[in-house]
Amino acid sequence: MSGPELGVCYYPEHWDRAQWSEDARAMVDLGLSWVRIGEFSWALVESRRGQFDWEWLDTAVETLGAAGLRIMLCTPTAAPPRWLIADHPEVLPVGVDGRVRDFGSRRHYCLSSDVYLGHAKRIARHFAERYGQNPYVRAWQIDNEIGDHDTAISYSQAALFGFQVWLRRRYLEIDALNVAWGTVFWGQRYEDFSDIGLPIGTVAEPNPAHAFDFRCYSSERIALFLGTQAEIVRAHSPGRPVLHNFMAGSYDFDHHRSMGEVDETGFDSYPLGNLVHGSLPEHEKSRWLRTGSPDYQGFHCDLYRRDGYGSGGRLWILEQQPGPVNWARHNPSPADGAVRLWTWIAYAHGADAVLFFRWRQAPFGPEQFHTGLHRSDGTPDQAFGEISRIVDERQGIPATERSPAPVAMILDYPSRWAQAILPQGQGYCGEEITAAWYRAIRNLGIEVDVVGPSVDISSYELILVPDMLVDNVEFVDRMCRHDAHLVLGPRCGSLTPGMRTPEGGAPGSFRKLVNLTVERVESLPDGHEEYVELEGETFRAGGWREHVTTGDRVIGRFTGGFRPGSPAIVENDRVIYLTTLAGLSCLEKVLAKAAKRAGIASYPISEGLRVTYRGQLGFAFNFSNENVDIPERPGQRFLIGGCRLGPIDMAVWTQT
Amino acid sequence: MSGPELGVCYYPEHWDRAQWSEDARAMVDLGLSWVRIGEFSWALVESRRGQFDWEWLDTAVETLGAAGLRIMLCTPTAAPPRWLIADHPEVLPVGVDGRVRDFGSRRHYCLSSDVYLGHAKRIARHFAERYGQNPYVRAWQIDNEIGDHDTAISYSQAALFGFQVWLRRRYLEIDALNVAWGTVFWGQRYEDFSDIGLPIGTVAEPNPAHAFDFRCYSSERIALFLGTQAEIVRAHSPGRPVLHNFMAGSYDFDHHRSMGEVDETGFDSYPLGNLVHGSLPEHEKSRWLRTGSPDYQGFHCDLYRRDGYGSGGRLWILEQQPGPVNWARHNPSPADGAVRLWTWIAYAHGADAVLFFRWRQAPFGPEQFHTGLHRSDGTPDQAFGEISRIVDERQGIPATERSPAPVAMILDYPSRWAQAILPQGQGYCGEEITAAWYRAIRNLGIEVDVVGPSVDISSYELILVPDMLVDNVEFVDRMCRHDAHLVLGPRCGSLTPGMRTPEGGAPGSFRKLVNLTVERVESLPDGHEEYVELEGETFRAGGWREHVTTGDRVIGRFTGGFRPGSPAIVENDRVIYLTTLAGLSCLEKVLAKAAKRAGIASYPISEGLRVTYRGQLGFAFNFSNENVDIPERPGQRFLIGGCRLGPIDMAVWTQT
Amino acid sequence: MSGPELGVCYYPEHWDRAQWSEDARAMVDLGLSWVRIGEFSWALVESRRGQFDWEWLDTAVETLGAAGLRIMLCTPTAAPPRWLIADHPEVLPVGVDGRVRDFGSRRHYCLSSDVYLGHAKRIARHFAERYGQNPYVRAWQIDNEIGDHDTAISYSQAALFGFQVWLRRRYLEIDALNVAWGTVFWGQRYEDFSDIGLPIGTVAEPNPAHAFDFRCYSSERIALFLGTQAEIVRAHSPGRPVLHNFMAGSYDFDHHRSMGEVDETGFDSYPLGNLVHGSLPEHEKSRWLRTGSPDYQGFHCDLYRRDGYGSGGRLWILEQQPGPVNWARHNPSPADGAVRLWTWIAYAHGADAVLFFRWRQAPFGPEQFHTGLHRSDGTPDQAFGEISRIVDERQGIPATERSPAPVAMILDYPSRWAQAILPQGQGYCGEEITAAWYRAIRNLGIEVDVVGPSVDISSYELILVPDMLVDNVEFVDRMCRHDAHLVLGPRCGSLTPGMRTPEGGAPGSFRKLVNLTVERVESLPDGHEEYVELEGETFRAGGWREHVTTGDRVIGRFTGGFRPGSPAIVENDRVIYLTTLAGLSCLEKVLAKAAKRAGIASYPISEGLRVTYRGQLGFAFNFSNENVDIPERPGQRFLIGGCRLGPIDMAVWTQT
Repeated sequence: MSGPELGVCYYPEHWDRAQWSEDARAMVDLGLSWVRIGEFSWALVESRRGQFDWEWLDTAVETLGAAGLRIMLCTPTAAPPRWLIADHPEVLPVGVDGRVRDFGSRRHYCLSSDVYLGHAKRIARHFAERYGQNPYVRAWQIDNEIGDHDTAISYSQAALFGFQVWLRRRYLEIDALNVAWGTVFWGQRYEDFSDIGLPIGTVAEPNPAHAFDFRCYSSERIALFLGTQAEIVRAHSPGRPVLHNFMAGSYDFDHHRSMGEVDETGFDSYPLGNLVHGSLPEHEKSRWLRTGSPDYQGFHCDLYRRDGYGSGGRLWILEQQPGPVNWARHNPSPADGAVRLWTWIAYAHGADAVLFFRWRQAPFGPEQFHTGLHRSDGTPDQAFGEISRIVDERQGIPATERSPAPVAMILDYPSRWAQAILPQGQGYCGEEITAAWYRAIRNLGIEVDVVGPSVDISSYELILVPDMLVDNVEFVDRMCRHDAHLVLGPRCGSLTPGMRTPEGGAPGSFRKLVNLTVERVESLPDGHEEYVELEGETFRAGGWREHVTTGDRVIGRFTGGFRPGSPAIVENDRVIYLTTLAGLSCLEKVLAKAAKRAGIASYPISEGLRVTYRGQLGFAFNFSNENVDIPERPGQRFLIGGCRLGPIDMAVWTQT
Repeated sequence: MSGPELGVCYYPEHWDRAQWSEDARAMVDLGLSWVRIGEFSWALVESRRGQFDWEWLDTAVETLGAAGLRIMLCTPTAAPPRWLIADHPEVLPVGVDGRVRDFGSRRHYCLSSDVYLGHAKRIARHFAERYGQNPYVRAWQIDNEIGDHDTAISYSQAALFGFQVWLRRRYLEIDALNVAWGTVFWGQRYEDFSDIGLPIGTVAEPNPAHAFDFRCYSSERIALFLGTQAEIVRAHSPGRPVLHNFMAGSYDFDHHRSMGEVDETGFDSYPLGNLVHGSLPEHEKSRWLRTGSPDYQGFHCDLYRRDGYGSGGRLWILEQQPGPVNWARHNPSPADGAVRLWTWIAYAHGADAVLFFRWRQAPFGPEQFHTGLHRSDGTPDQAFGEISRIVDERQGIPATERSPAPVAMILDYPSRWAQAILPQGQGYCGEEITAAWYRAIRNLGIEVDVVGPSVDISSYELILVPDMLVDNVEFVDRMCRHDAHLVLGPRCGSLTPGMRTPEGGAPGSFRKLVNLTVERVESLPDGHEEYVELEGETFRAGGWREHVTTGDRVIGRFTGGFRPGSPAIVENDRVIYLTTLAGLSCLEKVLAKAAKRAGIASYPISEGLRVTYRGQLGFAFNFSNENVDIPERPGQRFLIGGCRLGPIDMAVWTQT
Repeated sequence: MSGPELGVCYYPEHWDRAQWSEDARAMVDLGLSWVRIGEFSWALVESRRGQFDWEWLDTAVETLGAAGLRIMLCTPTAAPPRWLIADHPEVLPVGVDGRVRDFGSRRHYCLSSDVYLGHAKRIARHFAERYGQNPYVRAWQIDNEIGDHDTAISYSQAALFGFQVWLRRRYLEIDALNVAWGTVFWGQRYEDFSDIGLPIGTVAEPNPAHAFDFRCYSSERIALFLGTQAEIVRAHSPGRPVLHNFMAGSYDFDHHRSMGEVDETGFDSYPLGNLVHGSLPEHEKSRWLRTGSPDYQGFHCDLYRRDGYGSGGRLWILEQQPGPVNWARHNPSPADGAVRLWTWIAYAHGADAVLFFRWRQAPFGPEQFHTGLHRSDGTPDQAFGEISRIVDERQGIPATERSPAPVAMILDYPSRWAQAILPQGQGYCGEEITAAWYRAIRNLGIEVDVVGPSVDISSYELILVPDMLVDNVEFVDRMCRHDAHLVLGPRCGSLTPGMRTPEGGAPGSFRKLVNLTVERVESLPDGHEEYVELEGETFRAGGWREHVTTGDRVIGRFTGGFRPGSPAIVENDRVIYLTTLAGLSCLEKVLAKAAKRAGIASYPISEGLRVTYRGQLGFAFNFSNENVDIPERPGQRFLIGGCRLGPIDMAVWTQT
């Protein structure tokens, strides 16, 4: 049998010891094989500086392991103890308003603090030394939800000094910095690196290179924080995967670079909570109220799956929503069957293990209305039965691995920071643009890997670049040596990594691929529509419009009142360039065209249906409230379900 | 004659002495019997520390009293003098953003400051000693609008230290606190009470028990502040009522507990200003633009009237809006006749005295566009004639006292804090829920007392519990010994007073009354409607939905797309439980059903008409712009008006 | 030839020296005669305290001048160098939240700082001494965009001490202040001037006189800052105009008083950016998306043109938008032809010179997406061709000067502050009211000067006073001695300059002109409409309504549900008074009536067409997307265009 390994997040410290072995047995009985523990345990383990109480954790590990569970142990750095803050108040993070963010919840530490880094290494070493060889501890998580609650960036004194050192290393001479940043603008010339402040609290917008460098520095601090701990753990616990726990919808630091040398990655999947707080329009939020967006799980798996960038590692869901959560503006129940769909679609998209958050609802604390697999009184909750069903269903599923997709979509974190620093128009939002492109390619039934620009793209036939503001010469040069087809969105290559206009203007070095120059950009308000004609059809576009000159073929033209006939979509034999934020139907047409040119077959499907493959296994998921029929294919043998999918239902088949 | 005693708020310090006696005579001529003075007089009386100038106040008291007015004197603690702040800047309050709130307006003191409490006692003693036996001083007000401008809670050092002491007293041992708060969650374990901070500025949500205890502490400080002053005043001024001045729509502290041992209570009534800033939907705000909500005055009288909780005390309106105010986003004129309606409806609901704010419009200061009974040039303004009319009308009104209502509605302040701390869904708002239940019961023509849970409920036949989140074992036990009928809203009993999930989950100890367990709650966005079928009718519901199991009768079921048929309304022979936020028509049906079972007759009326009784006197008030006919009753004798009520008009009758 | 002189903003420090002479030649070739430089050059000129590097600026001046350009040199005080901030961190401004606003962008100085004023004078003197007699330097600009980024008011220690000194000078005795401010209200009595704080951070609203005096003080500091520099420059550079650079839509300080003794004034014109961030309703913003409001340029020229107030000076546009900007929420392209229209309409309204911002788009810094006349690679951008066309067109244009208009509209800055301090209703917004009155009078084809109340109004036949809250006895007395007609809006004269109610109430001393007393004001929400009948027509009104008594003729009456028949519009032989915020069509009717009585002819035109005159030259501008015909007039000879105007087109004629 195969299918997803299943597991659960567990907090032995929240419950009487008497319950631990019962819980462990019940986990095994349900069919779970993994249990994640310890991420907030520091204050329990080291109740005073250097005074350790390992006994309870030893017992918990022993109890869970002896019951047959594999343990994922977390380094507990997501919640430093009160005594540490009392000794070192300087490790507290500082918000964008300049105020210290205080003890009393979690993540109360500045990632730029070397003092905290030292303590984090110390406690990680203690954990790793004690449990690194423990036979039950079979995987590690470093910290927890790094960057959540806007903690990726802190404006502390430690950050200031660290940033100054970082700048000194990068620019060596202050005048090199002055030139690079263009401090001649608004007369901001610095005499010394120690003069440079943090880019907050300024009267008007700070220098964009100043702001961007600080984002880069902060991102590197996260990579350092995670990587240092991972290295310590790996040294003491060979053979166990060491994972970081990323958040869906988090772009404040460069996840690609933060993955370091770890074997596998994981993220936390909250399809409903993230829907509520996400950027979809209200009618879409209403439509997917109890299922989440059909692309939520797929997109994040395609992003965090390391296959995507060729390391051979695998993917975990470290926390999977099992019912209503507590932290969104409103917290609906999942539709019956949604937890099953989320689990299987994660598996289909490459997740090998899915850990539900959490075993039992907490009867205290801020998350007490966050459901678990059981209510706080121990009775099973909504998802329990669905997990049993998955355990049954996976019996007949053969082991497979996902193949690389024919299409890669580039997600470039620094471009998101550049967009925040130089927005130029509220209607341009990289997260929304990427989501629209992803939905369009999925509506065409085409598989896609969401990857960083430094990944080996040699196997891809089509590469999508929806919002890569920051020009990347190295990436473009690889594209030039490669023969994949490309689709580029507006703003691509419009800023150097030093936050300057590239020589010759946008799209910067992408001009090696497309014979086009952006002469001027304009951003437009919501409600103002531009129109584009493409092969006889007229589409709505909006939010962003570029005025370009091109020596390549103009295949789409603007048709509205302003400069009708000017180029909107340009192509040559390899590349299609969009000068505007095309709507979904226009995107589908353009991407279908590009796929066809790249020799990739499309299978258009409705938005409520998602189809994907893991090796020889085909998967179809119906997120809608209507029945959907999937076409029969020769050689198709159903392992779960059949050609007709009921609402919130799914099918799995082998294809021979 | 009876009817309301009338009075006015007056600021002799704002006017030339020459005017005082003229004003006093004019007050008497108008038919006023009370004049309230002194709440901002501290800096005038004690211009430097220990240096008193009583002469002006003596003269004012003498002048007003000699003219035939009864004086309500206020302790002047709502505005400490500048010298006190200069000497003790530490008494300034601190806002939720951690910033000191400065001198320059009013209420610039932290209620947790013992330094300020000392000064408040000192000045209250001076006032009480000097005027306690003065024959003209016939009532007292303590402070003014306590808690207004978000001053009920302050985050000062004084509050921090006071809170730590309070916690030490409450929990004795730090580990008792750790257990009670569940600090094991997110590893927040404290070593000592001195480690505990204020629950603001944390990275994520603070521990809910931490936040809730701080609300309790802050509320107790208000009770202490008011009670201490009241005790001093009462000791020196026996036989005079001592009132606190509460605000409509204020839930930041526990008003029930803050009423202490005082005989009577009062509140400030601003039907239009509070409408603008209140939570009614826009079309309702537009409908009642110039009258305020028809339930505004009734609800707040029913709440602040001490009859309601059996102390035998009475109710005052300490400030009554007489025209446009200055402080709302927009400040319309009352409809002609509205001031008359507000005054009479207050009397009908138990108010014995109504004091208008203010005698003459100020020609300076932040409230100079706030109307009074006269414009600043001394000419009568809008309300003047309406007051004359009331004075005439009350001639024929016999003295009566209001009888206890057959229905009690519970308003539990700590539950409001719990809701703010653990909201779980934006659509659940205790204030709005209570307002909807109140409107529904009033639309049924049924009288209701709005009371705290500790009141003696033995005389009530029906008890409504719309939003009592915080489980209250003592209250439930009294219910169990009583035989009144109950209607419970969703979320009731879902948290212990320690902000934990009750044993066995919601509705906690209410399960002694209804055989039902809440398995899961979900909160839903605006615009998403759930539907409930009850006795063949389908109603809209929304915002909140509970999934329950019950051994009692299911009389209403959900009928939408998600889990249709599941229980929405459950009853047994004594209790009806609503699992969702029912709309007004559904509430009316449920409450009518409950009233019928309790043997209480309903007289359905339209929303613009309000009917109530004070002893043998019947009152009808038409807030609408159309004529309304009230049914003739045998033995009905009209003292004011008749069966047909014109727009913004009223009738009073005796029933024999 | 005449027509506008043209120029450009240039930053030699941003470019290689090699480029300077090329650029200069290209400017001359294009037909530009002015180049503005230096406003952010301080850190480049004085790189360390007292260490000057003039060489580059000498060379730039020489290069540009030698090419035939006239140079406008700016004092560089808009961006103090980093070393100055390091030496004197106390010069940083403080925001309304009490936080220091830091170095890192521009305008990082407190205008109340005497330390900074000293440095500003020092650097201004250095600039003036070195370049005052330079033959190429032909005009000066002082500082840049004074008050932008909310820097007109700073809450620093320097401001506090400066304000205390200012108060001491103004009131001499603290008790005079106590009386004037009415500190008896809320017991705010001060013992000493040193007790007085800044009017921020108070618990409730501060005393309005306190807040208003601080606005007056802050405004005087700006006048001092500008005036002191201007005096220094003028002393060293006789015969050159010295300009201040004002912002459109800026009301935080009194521009009239800040103009001092300078000969000419200038402002920055961003018709699209200011549209996006302005207060027009969304459908209007959409309508004028690519042209800006047709009244934008005219209004600001009519305001900043010193003709208006009789000094004989002239008007410059110091920065003219040439394409999309970077700083608005969205940044559309101007319609083709819009830059031409903006330039000519500015000239028509009295601007003698129009300087485009900027010569070449910056390839770095926060404004790199702000277009210039060239892209950063040096190729001409959108506006380039339109400027060439203007250069051609102006060949045939004779020199003329604008005549005084027959109508004056009063814009009183202190009244705007009074409105912010005592708003009384969100629907009353002086900026919007003035814009509506301006649009109405322009729709009637009537010329208007927008002037301060201290201007000589003897030549005007009609004076419009839309929103003059602050009573001005001197102004009213001049009106009384004059025989012009007047139209007064609601709230006029409702507060004294000491923020008190005038004797006898509103409209204060205006009662010398109109026999009317405002008894009560009310403010109304959006969506709530009042109706006014005027001469058989019914108009919508709203937002504000006054209840008045009058001995003059009532020509308009309210007709809605509340007090129908009460006076809405009152007139006597000289004055019309509006008690409500009349809509555009009502305003047009009232103003046409007033104009007729004053003997001024109306020529009603559509909103997309604007017509104005400069001497014998007539100008018509079509901002709409349709063709518009202007009526032929006898003696009309077209110099540009003809009777039919295409979209975004214009005509110029002489009238004989």
